[in-house]
Amino acid sequence: MSVVTESGRTTVDSVVYVHPAAICESQRVGEGTRVWPFAHVLDGAVIGRDCNICEHAYVEGGATLGDRVIVKNQAMIWDGVAIEDDVFIGPGVAFTNDRYPRSRGLKETGHRYQQTENWLAPTTVRHGASIGAGAIVLAGVTIGQYASIGAGSVVTRDVPDHAIVSGNPARCVAWACSCGHPLGEHFSCPQCDRRFTLIDGALGIEE
Amino acid sequence: MSVVTESGRTTVDSVVYVHPAAICESQRVGEGTRVWPFAHVLDGAVIGRDCNICEHAYVEGGATLGDRVIVKNQAMIWDGVAIEDDVFIGPGVAFTNDRYPRSRGLKETGHRYQQTENWLAPTTVRHGASIGAGAIVLAGVTIGQYASIGAGSVVTRDVPDHAIVSGNPARCVAWACSCGHPLGEHFSCPQCDRRFTLIDGALGIEE
Amino acid sequence: MSVVTESGRTTVDSVVYVHPAAICESQRVGEGTRVWPFAHVLDGAVIGRDCNICEHAYVEGGATLGDRVIVKNQAMIWDGVAIEDDVFIGPGVAFTNDRYPRSRGLKETGHRYQQTENWLAPTTVRHGASIGAGAIVLAGVTIGQYASIGAGSVVTRDVPDHAIVSGNPARCVAWACSCGHPLGEHFSCPQCDRRFTLIDGALGIEE
Repeated sequence: MSVVTESGRTTVDSVVYVHPAAICESQRVGEGTRVWPFAHVLDGAVIGRDCNICEHAYVEGGATLGDRVIVKNQAMIWDGVAIEDDVFIGPGVAFTNDRYPRSRGLKETGHRYQQTENWLAPTTVRHGASIGAGAIVLAGVTIGQYASIGAGSVVTRDVPDHAIVSGNPARCVAWACSCGHPLGEHFSCPQCDRRFTLIDGALGIEE
Repeated sequence: MSVVTESGRTTVDSVVYVHPAAICESQRVGEGTRVWPFAHVLDGAVIGRDCNICEHAYVEGGATLGDRVIVKNQAMIWDGVAIEDDVFIGPGVAFTNDRYPRSRGLKETGHRYQQTENWLAPTTVRHGASIGAGAIVLAGVTIGQYASIGAGSVVTRDVPDHAIVSGNPARCVAWACSCGHPLGEHFSCPQCDRRFTLIDGALGIEE
Repeated sequence: MSVVTESGRTTVDSVVYVHPAAICESQRVGEGTRVWPFAHVLDGAVIGRDCNICEHAYVEGGATLGDRVIVKNQAMIWDGVAIEDDVFIGPGVAFTNDRYPRSRGLKETGHRYQQTENWLAPTTVRHGASIGAGAIVLAGVTIGQYASIGAGSVVTRDVPDHAIVSGNPARCVAWACSCGHPLGEHFSCPQCDRRFTLIDGALGIEE
């Protein structure tokens, strides 16, 4: 696994690649995962196999990532965020984990920050979803499988499977194929010909 | 105070903690303040006591921060930005200091960038306010005390004390208690029971 | 030109300044250009003369920048993005180059990521334009010369020359002088007295 050197930086080993200008302090990073310059994976973060943690990204202790997750540059993934397999986290995407943040030194916050359960709201991103560049994800939401979050969106509530959402606040504007392309007429994909059905507002793939 | 080493990096000393992968060039950082990896505090920045300058953050010369200010990852605080005590600056928050930026090499800008007063518009964030993740603050605004800026907001004008604003452009959508929780009916806080009154559009705490 | 040291970092040479905490791997960076801490210019990026690549910025191979381009902190410029002379790229600006991103490990993407032309949509920013802090630029658009993109905008379609756009999605709200100032009545600039005419929806300067 990754090795932290005396300088606080890490060196390459046989299974996880950590660039010399990155810091990887987690001992729970899967084989084939790469960590690029100025990125920081903290102790307590759990990352699966064959992930790509790009430059200036930040994965905090308590965050969990599945396999083949792409974390593009500057994405920030905090304690309480769980990301399933094959998810794409775009550049500059910011998760959050506190709905009503204040400086912890502010006396009016009282006991709020003394126990994690007082303030931390967990977030989940399901299998195959994509989050576009610069999107902001509010604490406590679930993003459904194969959903596509438009670049620059502010996600304030749950996103259904396969939904394409955009805007501030983000609203559903179309449906995405598993491959990522927007569906055309009759919920069929012009790119890969997969077909879907909409039942009770939920999109499912036709066998 | 912090010590800049030959490599341009800083070392830990007795009162200010600067991570080996951070750069702190200011000599005016208060006791108990911590500066984390890949953050840069420039010469001329003034930072109070017990602040937390998180990873990839940037505090430019001419910026001033009070005590117990939290500057989360990637926040950018420029010359002309003044932040009072106990403020929370969320991850990826970008301040600005020029309403009409152009490349300084563009000949059509003429004399604009020869004097700071031609282009720099100062910004103030008052005591106890919070700015959510990824919010953008336009140059020249004042954010009132205990105001809460929603994640992903674009702040284009002054924000009253205790206001909760969100959207692009940001608009007032509710009121925040000093503790950070949205106020409920009759301007009372369901979290901490503080009560407020609204007089002439301004929210004040009841004694 | 810049020199990459054994540590993967670069040293100052006579014509390009690369801060010791930056990484510049391109051999095609023009004289007078400066690269600041924690920024990374990759091999294959082409950068003109007298540019300023600020902290935590990222310029990928395949990106091209003209002369006197300002790339403020944390801006991300990818393969497929072409930026002409005298452009201002604000802090935290994120370009994109894929309209329908998915994790490359997701099996449903099929052959999509095997050839660049399947997914990469090029973006152009014309001479003298400015992009405000935190703006997101969707892949495939062209931003016209001297256009001004408001801070926090999400640019989803082409922007005409001299247009000022803002919002999510970005819409044209005013017109900008070449100097950057919004035009006043009769398309004249209150700052520098240049005058323009609007013909068929396009703004041109009067001789």
